[in-house]
Amino acid sequence: MILHGYWRSGAAYRVRIALALKGLAYEQVNHDLRTGAHTDPAYATLNPQRLVPALEVDGLILTQSAAILEWLDERFPDPPLLPVDADGRAIVRGMVATIATDVHPLHNLRTLKALRRDFGASEDQVNAWMTHWMTEGFAALETLIARHGDGFAYGATPTLADCITVPALYSAERFGVDVAPYPHLVASAARTAALAEAAHPSRQPDADA
Amino acid sequence: MILHGYWRSGAAYRVRIALALKGLAYEQVNHDLRTGAHTDPAYATLNPQRLVPALEVDGLILTQSAAILEWLDERFPDPPLLPVDADGRAIVRGMVATIATDVHPLHNLRTLKALRRDFGASEDQVNAWMTHWMTEGFAALETLIARHGDGFAYGATPTLADCITVPALYSAERFGVDVAPYPHLVASAARTAALAEAAHPSRQPDADA
Repeated sequence: MILHGYWRSGAAYRVRIALALKGLAYEQVNHDLRTGAHTDPAYATLNPQRLVPALEVDGLILTQSAAILEWLDERFPDPPLLPVDADGRAIVRGMVATIATDVHPLHNLRTLKALRRDFGASEDQVNAWMTHWMTEGFAALETLIARHGDGFAYGATPTLADCITVPALYSAERFGVDVAPYPHLVASAARTAALAEAAHPSRQPDADA
Repeated sequence: MILHGYWRSGAAYRVRIALALKGLAYEQVNHDLRTGAHTDPAYATLNPQRLVPALEVDGLILTQSAAILEWLDERFPDPPLLPVDADGRAIVRGMVATIATDVHPLHNLRTLKALRRDFGASEDQVNAWMTHWMTEGFAALETLIARHGDGFAYGATPTLADCITVPALYSAERFGVDVAPYPHLVASAARTAALAEAAHPSRQPDADA
């Protein structure tokens, strides 16, 4: 397996966490989003969206982190990262989407670039924008994790939800967003991060020194 | 089952399509997003994110359209809306996420409100913003559907991908985005829409006259 990523991409980090939790070996091809390396035509042939991550497996190209996480869990089911029952799976997938659809796309690199380009957004405005969407999503997740968690976001073992919360909190820390109001979220993510240290952005081959 | 929705919510529309394709009966409770009815404290108890849709089933509350779609397909597998093989499922889920994470959250009602509020975005700027994200996502989907579709977005029967493309094209039409460059996307969505006419926004009980 080849993971196309970028050390600081929150979406690539999700996939690295799942790979780490499952103990899977993989190669990395990294694309520096800051210099636009992912817009290279050769990469666009692989991934028409020209985003990271993408997972290359025996000629098959999988895109979108949430879809890759599901595929990894189906193909490498040990340890499972989804509950055994449909209702539990729906709760976990709802947690995943809370971040993956309603928080992260609103503050990832390309969106922030567009805010600066299209609206002349200042850094203060960009920070307020990011903080707004993170705190909205984190507050909802805190309620859900308090309701369904037992050490991890859902139940007593890591799930796909934890693969998503860890990068979300990494972003929050990076941008100085206060996460003290979300103790269940913070504790469950910290427990997962400790199980997947090799996945941390700072430990990737393309990380800034 | 009770679907908490709003006639013009693209995310609620996705769920209505899946319900229609599976021939499932359900009740509707609609929340007028324009007047902020979804921020009512009673609804926040049900759905901490205070967004639509949510699906209420025997006391269980499911949130996030992508998670609800997966749950419906697991609980009511006939007709199936995901391919039988893991690789195919990953492609379909990637298509779903292309719209659900990288297009729709950037132009839904709350995001456009925030652009106007935080950056004083004009209507021309808002329209250019929406057009930008839609055309980025549609172009990628067009490539994927040309590659994997056979009448529908993936293969020869509707999948969760089609549940997502139909509302995406409804939004494009509503906001005057040119979809002529995406013939595979348009044709597959039209075929699905014809199978799920009851799900159309204009046919919902809370629709504007």
